[in-house]
Amino acid sequence: MTRALELARSSLGKVSPNPSVGAVLVKDGRIVGEGVTQHPGGPHAEVMAINSAGDLAAGATLYVSLEPCAHYGKTPPCVEALIAAGIHSAFVATIDPDPRTNGKGIEFLKSEGIDVKIGDGSEEAEEIIESFTKFTMTQQPFFSAKFAMSLDGKIATRTGSSKWITSEESRKRSHVIRSQSDVIMIGVGTAIADNPLLTARTSKNLDSKQPLRLIVDTFGRLPTNSRMLKQAGRTIVASSEINSSTKRSLQNQGADVFEFPRVNEGVDLYAVANFLAAEGFTSVLAEGGSSLLGSLFNCKMVDKVYAFIAPLVIGGSGAKSPVGGLGPKDLSEATTMTKLEYETIGNDFLVTGYIKK
Amino acid sequence: MTRALELARSSLGKVSPNPSVGAVLVKDGRIVGEGVTQHPGGPHAEVMAINSAGDLAAGATLYVSLEPCAHYGKTPPCVEALIAAGIHSAFVATIDPDPRTNGKGIEFLKSEGIDVKIGDGSEEAEEIIESFTKFTMTQQPFFSAKFAMSLDGKIATRTGSSKWITSEESRKRSHVIRSQSDVIMIGVGTAIADNPLLTARTSKNLDSKQPLRLIVDTFGRLPTNSRMLKQAGRTIVASSEINSSTKRSLQNQGADVFEFPRVNEGVDLYAVANFLAAEGFTSVLAEGGSSLLGSLFNCKMVDKVYAFIAPLVIGGSGAKSPVGGLGPKDLSEATTMTKLEYETIGNDFLVTGYIKK
Repeated sequence: MTRALELARSSLGKVSPNPSVGAVLVKDGRIVGEGVTQHPGGPHAEVMAINSAGDLAAGATLYVSLEPCAHYGKTPPCVEALIAAGIHSAFVATIDPDPRTNGKGIEFLKSEGIDVKIGDGSEEAEEIIESFTKFTMTQQPFFSAKFAMSLDGKIATRTGSSKWITSEESRKRSHVIRSQSDVIMIGVGTAIADNPLLTARTSKNLDSKQPLRLIVDTFGRLPTNSRMLKQAGRTIVASSEINSSTKRSLQNQGADVFEFPRVNEGVDLYAVANFLAAEGFTSVLAEGGSSLLGSLFNCKMVDKVYAFIAPLVIGGSGAKSPVGGLGPKDLSEATTMTKLEYETIGNDFLVTGYIKK
Repeated sequence: MTRALELARSSLGKVSPNPSVGAVLVKDGRIVGEGVTQHPGGPHAEVMAINSAGDLAAGATLYVSLEPCAHYGKTPPCVEALIAAGIHSAFVATIDPDPRTNGKGIEFLKSEGIDVKIGDGSEEAEEIIESFTKFTMTQQPFFSAKFAMSLDGKIATRTGSSKWITSEESRKRSHVIRSQSDVIMIGVGTAIADNPLLTARTSKNLDSKQPLRLIVDTFGRLPTNSRMLKQAGRTIVASSEINSSTKRSLQNQGADVFEFPRVNEGVDLYAVANFLAAEGFTSVLAEGGSSLLGSLFNCKMVDKVYAFIAPLVIGGSGAKSPVGGLGPKDLSEATTMTKLEYETIGNDFLVTGYIKK
């Protein structure tokens, strides 16, 4: 199952709106086939595993990170392929939240005499499909907020100096998190201040699949010479009040410009979320700045937090902290978190956790 | 040695300016005597252990958290008492940094034919005497900064609501840290906003020994009805520009008011540190607020940080973060930390670390 989960994780961010699934076929104590979900429309993990096992699939045990599907989508149901391949038994980490399957896959396998055990590796499996689960249940993308701060909660000095608060190891990890996301979202302030590439680089080379870059830019302030516009992958500028010549200039540089209603704080982020959902983007990684994250928390849109904490004290009442915006008056209105996990990365800490809904 | 270190820790904050030391005598596999440093002028841990062992000290093995002293201070040298008691061998966790001993205690024991082993438990032993070490080497108190913040680096909401960011378990731990400190220091802003008792309460009852309370109060703004003034223990108001009637009112409420030179930001904190050192206070726990911690970091006076981090996101660009003040311009001027440790306390995290000097 460890291998199946590893495979599932490896395709995260590459197969949306499908869930990323890993499947392994084991026979006589050795792996005879494995597979991972292919791009939408391509074969699912189970079929990939059956194909790679060939005749050896007959009598094998399946380890799969998610319940095999029982419905016709873009591909035929995996359960039928598993029966046809003659598998002997199955370990399923977790149930498919998709109402079209949701237990029906397991039932079908059992009805065909397959011994099915559920739950081994469920915690990690559920984490792997967390954005798929939210998307399936709510038709909204899963939002993660990521920030890097000093131990005293600053994302930059009072003058905005921020390179680099965290270590190289943490920044590498950030690229892994990017690569597992469908969309990277930043505010235009950060886009102007940092002029980032905003690409996923998990190795020396650019990852072959780049997440969508989405810049929240109420007034169309993104410079046309922004470095990100020259990078592989797509950049969307989400504006509310952009004049047509600016729009055209950004489009000429390859950006897609979409206009959304304006609310008090700027672009209506609910409208942006609906747009992304309609386009099949299931996971959004919001990387800042302070003001965008403040709005996202204010809108109660954040599901998960990645907080990188560096062994530094910056200080300064004028230095920004990661989540700005208006913020609540009373502490009882603060956002509470759950399932916190802590990890050491180089000299930094990474705290991850989920927002209590 | 574990027991010796436990004993040493139990007297932290109670025996300054002496180091807190634990000693255990073991004979035939069982503890025959133990001792801990008494108040200044009272017997040292080794003598307490010998006294509690009586005749059983002869031939016993000593486990002691700090090298026995070799000099006449307020008490005769412990090494002579150990020889007189006839101990057989000794395990010493760490060397006494006091130049009057600093290896001489060990040499003396060895010269008397005692087998001495050094270093078992040294890391913890050095931590226990960290304030003594700094005080001995520099004649300055050891400064710790303590704060409690949300995962997004806020110590309160934008309106100042801060009760309670951290869990009861963390607040209990804070009282243990207070009890191990000679002085608790806060700024007058926090004294006014929170009106704290500022006592050490490690159990239901008030601890018998209370740390000195020191309020940094440039203009003498501490209200005369502050709750802390009614508590056991001593309160010092450190002012620069206090008028004589305010001074008298505070004194009438039991506060000691001392005047220090004024520098740009307020009371000259170096002068306060010198004053505390002269009075024999070896450790200061600065608990905030943002502005006092900012000044302390600005003055490069902080040695250690206790950061309690709660699983909350508060948000708000107007919400204070733990270390305020001016702060550096460039990230390269930020304070770097080392030897970071991480602990889970209830739902919170406690990160401790030392400032790189």
